Amino acid sequence: MKQFTLLLIAVGTMAGLVILMAPARGHADGEPAPFVTEIPHGYRDWRWISSAHEAGNLNSLGAVLGNDVAFNAFREGKLPYPDGTIIAALHYRNVPSEENNKVFGQAQSFVPGAPTNIQFMVKDSTKYAATGGWGFGHFAGGKPGDAAFMKSCFPCHEKAKASDLVFTRYAP
Amino acid sequence: MKQFTLLLIAVGTMAGLVILMAPARGHADGEPAPFVTEIPHGYRDWRWISSAHEAGNLNSLGAVLGNDVAFNAFREGKLPYPDGTIIAALHYRNVPSEENNKVFGQAQSFVPGAPTNIQFMVKDSTKYAATGGWGFGHFAGGKPGDAAFMKSCFPCHEKAKASDLVFTRYAP
Repeated sequence: MKQFTLLLIAVGTMAGLVILMAPARGHADGEPAPFVTEIPHGYRDWRWISSAHEAGNLNSLGAVLGNDVAFNAFREGKLPYPDGTIIAALHYRNVPSEENNKVFGQAQSFVPGAPTNIQFMVKDSTKYAATGGWGFGHFAGGKPGDAAFMKSCFPCHEKAKASDLVFTRYAP
Repeated sequence: MKQFTLLLIAVGTMAGLVILMAPARGHADGEPAPFVTEIPHGYRDWRWISSAHEAGNLNSLGAVLGNDVAFNAFREGKLPYPDGTIIAALHYRNVPSEENNKVFGQAQSFVPGAPTNIQFMVKDSTKYAATGGWGFGHFAGGKPGDAAFMKSCFPCHEKAKASDLVFTRYAP
């Protein structure tokens, strides 16, 4: 079964509060930082790739969207993702739906609550050559994660290349 | 907080196995059935409205997509939804992601597993006048739910009109 392991999901939903990743290794200070610092235009119109739920402290419910380059590559099973690919992970608190639970007769239904952060992966094999062609972005309240957060929590070097090897479900 | 209570979600993910709803009342045998029996074309390209997670026996993770009419009305906060609206709910088993859990160091990450069903709400105030303008569809393995299932589990009359009153989150 194909499962989705988008790196961004693993970073979690509590930007600045939870540092989940081991510090990035192998990213020399002199190298250009592989961090996306502007929110890609129009991402909210992109197509749906997958959903994601984090239990435990993160308690997150989200969606993974892709721009046309990402979505078409994903649908067609083209790997590695071509340059121009942008994948967005939109995260929200996982909150109970009282209205749904009334229908079910028990507390079992959860929906997106308050937004927590939006994360991006951008494929540019030239610009982000040092991290397998992937740049990373994290935005909370419309603002990018600061340099310390970005550097500490994104597993850029070790994991970036793997992102071309893994895939989520595509429902035809 | 705006939460999503799409009727279809409440129907659950185990078509033919779990009958969650009370029998539809007030749907006289002579009335046209408000059931959508063909899968709307191109739904997998529609834009993302929301995600949904059902815990408990259903153990479902899914997404709610909307065609352009639905999505634009949703984004703009136009209620009631105009004719031409189609909303799709794609349901999957909620399964652990071993790859994500390795990163987190604990079992907390869930992704869509095997697909269970796809459900639709179609707004046509003439065709589905008897059910608040909404038609309903449920498909598992590409096949529509049978008449008994559809009739027994969709709360058409009581709940349909409420579907214009509720909304999910729109993340700008």
